[in-house]
Amino acid sequence: MTSLTREDCAKLDAEDPLAGFRAEFALPDGVVYLDGNSLGALPKATPERVSRVVEREWGADLIASWSAAGWWDQPRTLGARIAPLVGAAPHEVVVGDSTSANLFKTLVAALRLNPDRNVVVGEAGNFPTDLYVTQGAAELMGAAERRVDPDEPALEAALASGDVAVVLLSHVDYRTGTLRDMAGLTRLAHRHGALVLWDLCHSVGALPVELGACGVDFAVGCTYKYLNAGPGAPSFTFAAERHHATARQPIAGWHGHARPFDFSGEYVPAEGASRFLSGSQSLIAAAALEASLDLWSRVDLDRLRAKSLALTDLFATLTADTGLMLMTPRAAERRGSQVSLRHPDGPAGEAIVRALAERGVIGDFRQPDVLRFGFAPLYLRHVDVYDAATALVEVVRSGGWRASRFTAPQEV
Amino acid sequence: MTSLTREDCAKLDAEDPLAGFRAEFALPDGVVYLDGNSLGALPKATPERVSRVVEREWGADLIASWSAAGWWDQPRTLGARIAPLVGAAPHEVVVGDSTSANLFKTLVAALRLNPDRNVVVGEAGNFPTDLYVTQGAAELMGAAERRVDPDEPALEAALASGDVAVVLLSHVDYRTGTLRDMAGLTRLAHRHGALVLWDLCHSVGALPVELGACGVDFAVGCTYKYLNAGPGAPSFTFAAERHHATARQPIAGWHGHARPFDFSGEYVPAEGASRFLSGSQSLIAAAALEASLDLWSRVDLDRLRAKSLALTDLFATLTADTGLMLMTPRAAERRGSQVSLRHPDGPAGEAIVRALAERGVIGDFRQPDVLRFGFAPLYLRHVDVYDAATALVEVVRSGGWRASRFTAPQEV
Repeated sequence: MTSLTREDCAKLDAEDPLAGFRAEFALPDGVVYLDGNSLGALPKATPERVSRVVEREWGADLIASWSAAGWWDQPRTLGARIAPLVGAAPHEVVVGDSTSANLFKTLVAALRLNPDRNVVVGEAGNFPTDLYVTQGAAELMGAAERRVDPDEPALEAALASGDVAVVLLSHVDYRTGTLRDMAGLTRLAHRHGALVLWDLCHSVGALPVELGACGVDFAVGCTYKYLNAGPGAPSFTFAAERHHATARQPIAGWHGHARPFDFSGEYVPAEGASRFLSGSQSLIAAAALEASLDLWSRVDLDRLRAKSLALTDLFATLTADTGLMLMTPRAAERRGSQVSLRHPDGPAGEAIVRALAERGVIGDFRQPDVLRFGFAPLYLRHVDVYDAATALVEVVRSGGWRASRFTAPQEV
Repeated sequence: MTSLTREDCAKLDAEDPLAGFRAEFALPDGVVYLDGNSLGALPKATPERVSRVVEREWGADLIASWSAAGWWDQPRTLGARIAPLVGAAPHEVVVGDSTSANLFKTLVAALRLNPDRNVVVGEAGNFPTDLYVTQGAAELMGAAERRVDPDEPALEAALASGDVAVVLLSHVDYRTGTLRDMAGLTRLAHRHGALVLWDLCHSVGALPVELGACGVDFAVGCTYKYLNAGPGAPSFTFAAERHHATARQPIAGWHGHARPFDFSGEYVPAEGASRFLSGSQSLIAAAALEASLDLWSRVDLDRLRAKSLALTDLFATLTADTGLMLMTPRAAERRGSQVSLRHPDGPAGEAIVRALAERGVIGDFRQPDVLRFGFAPLYLRHVDVYDAATALVEVVRSGGWRASRFTAPQEV
């Protein structure tokens, strides 16, 4: 594959069954955007949808829209539309609140479902908010926190003590792009009496997720990365049906009440995953998610996965001679939809990312030394990957990045 | 005042120093909107601001906007702009999450600040989410919940036991429109060693709020009612400076971290009210709030209050002969910006609200028997109040509402 030319890439694009989706995104000219794993691109249909909610549903119809426009049910409606993307039943997913808040709610619910155990096991290198939320929830619940490497031997050793209530794992590692064995690790945790909470932030919309088939208990995911719902878009929560009757989350707001319009003084949790809802959520933000889910409802996830693997493989292959260390596994079954490269000199790595941006190739840098490139299969072409890889090779070889040694902007 | 004519009202409008604001709102034709206490009207500047964030900051500039467009600091920037509306210092207010989530965070923080006490006192008739969140937080923290009437004698009796950690009160009662004595009740709670958390949902943007001068500990408010930031817009949290160093809220996400871009594994809470932040918030929803705060930054709150009192007084006076019972205090110092009327037959009251809506007067109905009319002084005129009151009098007298006995839509 190392001898692939730009023309070969153009041929692959011509045969790509997902190629038509690119025209549905508003991508800036002259840019190869490899940061869709941080903030997904804007679907062209989104501005009109957002305007409709702002000007018609809010401006003209005002409070009538709570029922007439389906506002009240929006967290369930959107959840049901995300469900097929994560292998869940429609009533197992609701949309609302941030990823941090939803991790908190599901962690507390899991600890309560497993009251004879008081340890939360997390990943040593997980995304900071997962670590912080776990720290906060464990402290609040009088539980202990244990951090391990997210591989089977380390996890098995941590679980062997028999006191683990819940394990929080990321499906795809945000730094390295490593894809975890959801089925195997879930089985392992269950065998040891622990519940499992999966963070899907870097997998939903990047590959098929099979929460139901894997027997997962709880999951939380992000909609502003691969799902293209806009900056800070609401998160979603999955709760397996078998936990619906008994799971109790701590933020008992009226949107999670069984009969909210009775205005009763006593909290009675709703049926289904709805009991994980709390307060009112932005309907303007929901409009952007609705628009992107219209697009996602037409995506074949197996084709998405095949293209994702082809793009990441192509990039890893074309950049193999740069001297940067590949952190992302080459084995397809262990790879998400990103390629991470390590530079032994962190600030140099950051300067390379900056120099690439000046050439129109947008990746990002993660402390202390990770160059991170995300590949969103709906709007990236093989030729984009070829051009980005060529730019990276040139920047590294020419040393042109040395002129770009200034601080990169904060990115999320 | 009972003999006031429509012409008198038109004269009052001509002299109204706030009259110019009405032209800044997109109000539907032929409607008198008296539900701005539930969902505020759309400012005309909002659609363009929202479009700018969607199409330019997100669509064109993508992740660069986290720093270039001020996205990362938006919860603090917006908080600092809300601060003058509630009598707080800029670093005492942050924006994000729902009212329910913020009540939960501040209740837990208050319980932790007062660890030798384990009772939360709330209002018996508070808005359901306040009751539910209190129930949930108390259960989680092993605290007891006590519900009382929010008057001084009842509160004093509840506080006398000496075990009350925190009192949660609503500044304006959502059903009756009664305004509470924030200074007096806060003093009373403090005298008995309790902290105070105020719910400002029905007062912020309706009257001047003086959190600092009243010595309030924590407060939570809504931006989609009188502040006009759109359906489900984010809530805000006030934490008094004296609690910044020690307050610990339970959802320890990375937006509340002191140095989030270190990506450190240990949670260190940020300075100021920022420690009450958790995860990423919708920047599209934030854009709508930003647009409405541009407008609010030009509002004289004393004039707002004077007009609010004039409008509610006018409506109460003109509808005094309907036979409906006035629930809202006539005394100005005990009245928020709404008028609530009770019908002895609940379903009849609901049908009256519906019949009014058919005549273009939008109020709302709250179970079991409350007709609720909110008066947003920025976009309501005296003639609107006159027309609405006239319509109500006609509907009640003619019995025309009997034809409207169908279920009103859900409203929030």
